[in-house]
Amino acid sequence: MAEFDLIARIRQRATARPDVVLGIGDDAAVVQVPADRQLVICADTLNAGVHFPLDTAPADIGWKALAVNLSDLAAMGAQPAWCTLSLSTPTDDPEWVDAFLDGFLGLAEHHGIALIGGDTTRGPLSISVTAHGLVEPDRALRRDGAQAGDDVWVSGTLGDAAAALALLAAPVSGAAIDLRARLDRPDPRVALGLQLPGVANAAVDISDGLWADLGHVCRASGLGAAVRIAALPGSPGLLQAFDVTRRREFQAAGGDDYELCFTAHEGRRAQIDLIAARTGIALTRIGRMLGGEGVQGLEADGSPWQPARAGWVHFSD
Amino acid sequence: MAEFDLIARIRQRATARPDVVLGIGDDAAVVQVPADRQLVICADTLNAGVHFPLDTAPADIGWKALAVNLSDLAAMGAQPAWCTLSLSTPTDDPEWVDAFLDGFLGLAEHHGIALIGGDTTRGPLSISVTAHGLVEPDRALRRDGAQAGDDVWVSGTLGDAAAALALLAAPVSGAAIDLRARLDRPDPRVALGLQLPGVANAAVDISDGLWADLGHVCRASGLGAAVRIAALPGSPGLLQAFDVTRRREFQAAGGDDYELCFTAHEGRRAQIDLIAARTGIALTRIGRMLGGEGVQGLEADGSPWQPARAGWVHFSD
Repeated sequence: MAEFDLIARIRQRATARPDVVLGIGDDAAVVQVPADRQLVICADTLNAGVHFPLDTAPADIGWKALAVNLSDLAAMGAQPAWCTLSLSTPTDDPEWVDAFLDGFLGLAEHHGIALIGGDTTRGPLSISVTAHGLVEPDRALRRDGAQAGDDVWVSGTLGDAAAALALLAAPVSGAAIDLRARLDRPDPRVALGLQLPGVANAAVDISDGLWADLGHVCRASGLGAAVRIAALPGSPGLLQAFDVTRRREFQAAGGDDYELCFTAHEGRRAQIDLIAARTGIALTRIGRMLGGEGVQGLEADGSPWQPARAGWVHFSD
Repeated sequence: MAEFDLIARIRQRATARPDVVLGIGDDAAVVQVPADRQLVICADTLNAGVHFPLDTAPADIGWKALAVNLSDLAAMGAQPAWCTLSLSTPTDDPEWVDAFLDGFLGLAEHHGIALIGGDTTRGPLSISVTAHGLVEPDRALRRDGAQAGDDVWVSGTLGDAAAALALLAAPVSGAAIDLRARLDRPDPRVALGLQLPGVANAAVDISDGLWADLGHVCRASGLGAAVRIAALPGSPGLLQAFDVTRRREFQAAGGDDYELCFTAHEGRRAQIDLIAARTGIALTRIGRMLGGEGVQGLEADGSPWQPARAGWVHFSD
């Protein structure tokens, strides 16, 4: 399959939006940004064997390549609008491409984001996506807005994706399948992100692990954070498959969860409980922003706890 | 050098624009698009050994990764505004990164485009750039606007980059250095593109070769094109190093020139000559749009001529 056939295949399957003036097939796309919105832009690349296991199904690769970008838009409180896809593949197998697009475009359709352009090249499997979202002026959620005394919240459960990676190396029966789904098909918290402007003071998505990502909020805001380690939410699969020592490590330092971590004034608690009810996404209060610096874990008795590795130190953001 | 150091290094060197609300360092960037402009978005990836020779200097790789995207903006008639950079490298050598940024950011500064975000990952050398530009509403240059009877124009000279590639395989003394500069440091025709809305009816940049790219305009516009092969502009270096047979092949079918090809009504000739004088970029009338389909080459005596290969059939657009 030559490149132009591949582009034709992608073009044929991409869905439109009325604000796309010119979509796939020219030197560039043209879109109309509403006059009363600011534009949010993020870019994330997935490389085979670095960001997903080599045995990952093509549909899951397509899903995840878009999901990690939608997660960044969610962390900004932005409404997804348009994306581009740069796909380097060693193969021109139409079945592989169609399966990849099943995952990518299925998630795109769910979130109403239009694929408007990109690039296909021959090379080692690598997927670069740039996603564009819209926010009301100066309402984007930033990392640098946390206030001392803010509650620290996380969505969903933590540690499943890292646990799934660990299980790939040393399989355990039972919960592994559910955990692997969390690794392969992260569910970007777009609906939650859209509820947070005006409620949260700072937000970040958890891609590198809670300690690392909350650490970004601490640094950007000039604060520290105290986290009650027993409060970290875990899935039934995680609780079943791992003892408390390993589980905490995954929850505190494991990457690839794509949950949101945000801070908010304690006066917002009732409102945040309502958001959880409305979106159907569990929201757990895990700690508090403080003066000082860095993320400090605390046992129930107040004694300190830190993960053995303070977040992924891999090469990706 | 860990990833966060690499991002800090990039952030420190990136220049700002007043319309960047939030730049490098959060989950995403935020920009303010003027209410009276449409947004033009393009994405192009360069892979080592596919899109540039493995011995290419890091500063040239950085330059070219941005240049090929600016060329797409130029072909749309757009004013460059913001870009993202997804950089996969096997190395974390600060000297390599600094040299790469010298090329990338040097060209960015020249064209007033701000680097606002992106991603750094460990992997085979690959650079994905997404570039954003601004156009007046519905003034973007498209491939599908050519009219029967339009003149076909090209900027600059054609064939140098393909000739440089050929010389890498079979060196010839003399002009090779100038030609190699055309391959490594293409000069995106941004200033020219900005003059063309309202003058040209269709435009494309020549990345895959004149025959292939003018062929895109033909297909999109439902027309054919006749090209006077003797009219194709060539550089002194090209004319010196190659006989007419090989030269024509490079000019008609060689990729990587990043000149603009555009069509315009013959009533625009004087205006186009003025644009050439004003921008200092040679503009050559090489043929005409006609009914029918495909690109037809014509010798001076009217006999047909076609390149042996009708443009690159490589995997990249």
